[in-house]
Order: sequence, then structure tokens, then C-alpha cells
Amino acid sequence: MSPMIGFDEIRKLAQVTPSRIVLLVMDGVGGLPHPDTGKTELETANTPNLDKLAVESICGMAYTVSPGITPGSAPGHMSLFGYDPLKYQFGRGIVEALGLDIEVAPGDVVVRGNFCSVDDDGVITDRRAGRIPTETCREQCAMLNQGVAVTGVQVDFFAGKDHRFVMRLRGEGLSQNVGDTDPQHEGMQPLVPEALEPSATKTAAIAADIVSQARTILKDRHPANMFVLRGFSERPDYPSINDIYGLTPACIAPYPMYRGVSRVVGMDILPAGDTLEDEIATLKQNYDKYDYFFMHYKKTDATGEDGNFEGKVAAIEAYDRLLPSILDLNPDVVIVTGDHSTPAGLAGHSWHTVPVLLSAKYCRKDEVTAYSETACLRGGLGVFPAMELMPLAMANALKLNKFGA
Amino acid sequence: MSPMIGFDEIRKLAQVTPSRIVLLVMDGVGGLPHPDTGKTELETANTPNLDKLAVESICGMAYTVSPGITPGSAPGHMSLFGYDPLKYQFGRGIVEALGLDIEVAPGDVVVRGNFCSVDDDGVITDRRAGRIPTETCREQCAMLNQGVAVTGVQVDFFAGKDHRFVMRLRGEGLSQNVGDTDPQHEGMQPLVPEALEPSATKTAAIAADIVSQARTILKDRHPANMFVLRGFSERPDYPSINDIYGLTPACIAPYPMYRGVSRVVGMDILPAGDTLEDEIATLKQNYDKYDYFFMHYKKTDATGEDGNFEGKVAAIEAYDRLLPSILDLNPDVVIVTGDHSTPAGLAGHSWHTVPVLLSAKYCRKDEVTAYSETACLRGGLGVFPAMELMPLAMANALKLNKFGA
Repeated sequence: MSPMIGFDEIRKLAQVTPSRIVLLVMDGVGGLPHPDTGKTELETANTPNLDKLAVESICGMAYTVSPGITPGSAPGHMSLFGYDPLKYQFGRGIVEALGLDIEVAPGDVVVRGNFCSVDDDGVITDRRAGRIPTETCREQCAMLNQGVAVTGVQVDFFAGKDHRFVMRLRGEGLSQNVGDTDPQHEGMQPLVPEALEPSATKTAAIAADIVSQARTILKDRHPANMFVLRGFSERPDYPSINDIYGLTPACIAPYPMYRGVSRVVGMDILPAGDTLEDEIATLKQNYDKYDYFFMHYKKTDATGEDGNFEGKVAAIEAYDRLLPSILDLNPDVVIVTGDHSTPAGLAGHSWHTVPVLLSAKYCRKDEVTAYSETACLRGGLGVFPAMELMPLAMANALKLNKFGA
Repeated sequence: MSPMIGFDEIRKLAQVTPSRIVLLVMDGVGGLPHPDTGKTELETANTPNLDKLAVESICGMAYTVSPGITPGSAPGHMSLFGYDPLKYQFGRGIVEALGLDIEVAPGDVVVRGNFCSVDDDGVITDRRAGRIPTETCREQCAMLNQGVAVTGVQVDFFAGKDHRFVMRLRGEGLSQNVGDTDPQHEGMQPLVPEALEPSATKTAAIAADIVSQARTILKDRHPANMFVLRGFSERPDYPSINDIYGLTPACIAPYPMYRGVSRVVGMDILPAGDTLEDEIATLKQNYDKYDYFFMHYKKTDATGEDGNFEGKVAAIEAYDRLLPSILDLNPDVVIVTGDHSTPAGLAGHSWHTVPVLLSAKYCRKDEVTAYSETACLRGGLGVFPAMELMPLAMANALKLNKFGA
């Protein structure tokens, strides 16, 4: 383990130059060998363009959080953006809000909600209200938006999938330090929202008032005749990529979750469209306006989560086919990696390292000639924490001055 | 660096499942090439079973403490158990006590003692009392146990090897913050035990009283007519493996030192017998009762310490022959490694990395086909701190939930 340089030091070294960094994230790209062939998804896929790029790159295998830890999407991306994901964490409420593309301003408090079923005594009989359809959830949220009123605080309900929603409080002097109302068990009444520290007394009282109003508004809406709240959280106040690295960063990501994390680190959010072609078009149109681009590709993760080995292979091959149109822009630094592995064999995120490729004029190429888990292990970056990628990208873009005399 | 995840986070992610982890420690297994053959002890040994297991594993080379640091047995094992050995340290007194299998309860204070020779003025003439035989040491301790009396405190002397012993104080309000009486030089009188902070005043006074009583009891026992004390220490109050990981851990180790360290991290201590066959029998008998087993093999270190290259090769081969009877149990995760290297060429512990092999269903096998220093260096774990093994074992046993959303 090598000690990692801190933001304070990086700030002193960073300089603005015309060079450009493009971070290409294939979500969940790492995999595991197929039992029949012994080859991973990446090793099975025909990827002439990625392999050609690997020849011109320095490669390695990265942990995005910590050895053995299976990263969620938010910590996985924070690491790729250069932030220690164990330090720069996100509350549950904020992650849910980001995933719904809800605007969360500084000072707002958001919380994740579940509609639930309660009996005549207010005791929870189903914590998920029989997983009501999303359409019903939207109706419920509309009723609450119309019915709930708190003096001096704007309260908004945003429907999520099935029984899930987000409640946003906007006003003066709010605090995230309020306890959940979700007792995590059926057979109990929802808890009274409790101030976890004195500064949160007002917010807890507001939450209690809202809960009380909601009880009346929802009373005839069985099975979704009540709700429980979890993870009161504010938008984290983290230093921006611009502040730390002097970069002008942009995000191209079709899914709200990734846009949300990018927003927290101060990226401009560009329209991503629906397809990879759309994303590349956006990249080209905005190429002169930014010096750091994060481009997100979801299909590798989605197919992996489905346990669809062949689908993931196809998603990788589709990406490979379009890679040359990105490289045509001649970015000074290109990184290809994932935010975590999603082996089809596990049908979910996993703890395994992700292959990394960094291509740049002065990158000290290694002997790796393919972009895959086995090949990248022999690369010049070794097995390393992904949060080191950002300083490496900066260095390879010749944007970092010498440290010390 | 890998930003290593902390215990607080691990606690939130850990879940209890029926899967089992077996940690096989060949003490001091790492070595150095024999000058005649250029092969290390592991590379010289015929180890078909370890090599076969390596094929099914992810491998690497680990530092148990930190690069360049030669680990003692306690820090080497703490690292393998997932504890940062630079943070979770042991006092000298407690290490000695653990090595003698002395029961040390919370609140007890133990200290390491040497019998020494003093002249008529009480000046030390030999700090080791001419290395009196162990039998004499036992007589001395018996005399002290009979003669020393302190009101409200139970004082016990336990003989060690040669001139060494451990003194244990048991009573209310004791403190480890007492200075050594050992001046570390001959030609001086033993120091008066000094309270290093106010809370230790009582313990320092008790120690001074005991020293004074001992002077009388031992006065005719030349060359062992006095003693010096070093390293007052309490049993460290460290979080247990069960507390952190939710595991139910067991130790199978024939030597007291390893049992002692295991006890500190909350393992159940199983009868280990005298031979590796005995240890394996214990493992089999208890396999249903625990989900984490630490099994210790001493011969690789003992032969290395003796500078006996061929003996160490034979010890490795003996282990390899019995390995299949362990693997017959089909543990979900098997780790083979050492707590440090003990090259026969150095006849002692060394700072060199130790080869690691981790075998599990989803371990992402690498291209390593032998368990040795040279082969494991090409493994998927890279060169890494051994304390990362515990989260990796947990992950591979599917006992860790996802971190962050």
C-alpha cells in the first residue's frame, strides 16, 4: 500500500491546460469465467478496438472500494472520480433522490419512503403495501403533494418504482439528523421521527407533522394507507472536481443515478440521449467546452445483473464497435474501466477487481495486448485502488506540476 | 494504498451464513533461494496438492505488517485475522504470558521477568543470572509464589524458559502504566517501579513492595538472587472476530503463543494435540460447530529458525501430503499462507512477503499453477497487505453485503 496524496496537495499541483481526459465507464464490466469455456465475458467478446487500445496503454486491475468489498454504484463512481468512497459517502435518501433525478439543493433534506399497510391500530401489516404498482404510487404522491402543508417548508413527494418514493423538504434550518420512522419490522407502529441531535428538533417536528397529516390523507387508501421513512439526508457538500483538479468536467450518462453522483462532484450534466451513439454525439458536440468527460455505459451491468452472459458479451462487443468514433477525437488521456464487476455468474455486483486501461502519449505502455481481467493483471498499474486513477489521468494529461523541490 | 475498510463499516456489511472459511497458516513458510539451486524451500519441495489447489485459486504475495518490517508472531497473526498489526499491538508482558498459556483476565496486569545476579550492593552483575536452567527457574517461582504476599492482590509467578518468568497481578484498580525495573544495563541497581500516570500509583507501589519482598526471599539464591521486570501490560481489549465479522471462530494450534493471540480476538480454543494429524482430526470433529477455523502449523518456522533448509522442505512436503484430508471437508473458502517468512538462509523471521492462495467457488482464478514465492507473484491478488485477506475471505464466502447504493 502506498500513501495516497490528499486533495490539499493536489490542488497546489494542478494546472489548467488544453489537454483533455475522457473516462469511459462500462458499468460492471469485470466478470468471471464461464464454467464451460473458462473465459470471462470480456475474454469471450471479440474486442479488436479495445485490444488495440490496450497495446497503446498502461493497464491494471483496480479495487473501487476496498479488497473484498462489493461496491454500490455511488461509491464505485466516487472512486473513479478520485474520491475515497469510504470517506465520501452518500446517505440512503440522497442516493434514492439521485436515482430519480430529483433536484437536491444545498440545505434540502431528502428521505426515502415506502408506502406500507397498517391496520386499525396503526400497526404495520405489510412494509411494502403489497408492492403496489408504480402508477398507484404516483397517485399516492400526487395526493400527498396536494394535501400536505407545512408553514415555511416546501414538501414534495416524488414517486419511485412500486411502493418507493422520495420526500424532499426545502426550507430554512433543516437537518438530516432525524431518525427513521421505519421500524424495519411488521407488527409495530411506525416510529415517531426523533431528533438525533438538538439542531434537528425542528426537522423532526416537521416530519412528525407530515406523518400525522399523511395518516389522514391516506386512511382510505389500503393497502397503501401509510408510509415509513428511512435515511434522512442532505446533499453532501463535497469539494468539486473543478476545485480539486482545476478541471471543467462534464457527465454524459443516460441513467439518473450516475448523473446524480456526477452532479455532487460538480460536473455539468449533458444530454445523454438513449443510445451509445447519442452519447458519442453529445461528446463530439461538447468536445471543445470541457477538458474532462465522464461517459457511462449501462448495458454491461444490466446484462450482468440479469445473469445474461451472452448478453453481456454482446454489450461489450457493441461498445467495442463504437470505440473508434470516440478515439477519433484524439483525447490526450483515455481511461476505460468499470465501477465494479458484475459477473453474469453471480447476477449482481461483486467484489472482484475491474480491468483498467489508460492510454496517453507518455503512459509507459506495458506488455498487455488485450483488455481483459487476465491480461490487465500483467499491466504496469498492478492491482491498485481506483481512486488513484484521477491523479494518474491528470499526470498523463501533463496537468500536474512537480511535488516538492 | 488500498483504503482499507474499517471495522465499523464491515460490521454493517457482514452477514451470518452457513459457509465456512478455513485459514491454514504454515508458520514462516516464505523463504529464500538456496545458493546451490536458486530455489526456495517451497520451490524445492514436492507439493502436488498445494500446486493443484493453486490452480483453483487466486494467489498473491502479502506483507503481514508493512514493507521491510520483520513481523513477530503476534503481529503476523493479527494481520491474518484482519487486524492492522500497527494499531492492534501487544505489550511485551502479554506476549510472554500468551506464550506460556497463562490465563489473563480483563483487569489483570502481567509483566515479563528475568532472574538476574546482583552483588552485595544490589548492583546487577548478570542480567540473565547465568541463564539458569528452566528447572531452577521453576524452583525460584515456587519460592516466590509461596513467599510473596500483598493485601488485596493475588500475585502469581509462572516460570518460562531459562531465566524468564511472568508475574501476574490480579485485583481491583490495577494499571499497566508502570515503568520497567530493568535498567537494560549491568552495573546498575534495578530501577524502582514508577507510575507512568497517576492512575498507576497503586500498581507501582504494589510492584515496589513485591520487589522488596523478593529481594529477601531470593537473597541466598545466587546467581539468581534478584529479578528485573519489563513490559507491564494488560490483556488488550480488542473487538472480537465475532463482533466484527459475525463469524464463530475456532483456533487449532498446538503452541501457546498462537492460542493466546487467537484468544484475544475471541476464538474458541480447540484441543490441537501434538501432530498435524491431530489438528486435522479436531477440525473434522468440530467442523459443524464453527464457520471460521484457524489452523496453525509450526514446523515450517521451527526448521527455518534452525537454518535447516532440508528440514523445512520436508516440513512443507509433510503438510502437502495431509492437505487433501483437509480439502475433503469442502470448505467454501480455503486460505493457505504464512504469518511471515522464515528463510532457512537467515535462520529467523524475515521481512519478505509470504505467498498466499485463496480458493473459493467465485474467486476469479488466475494463471498461477504452483504455490511458491515466484509463482504467486503473478497472482490476481498482487502484492498486498495481509490484513485485506479477512474481507476477501468474507466476500468469497458470500458473507458481505454490498457497500453503498
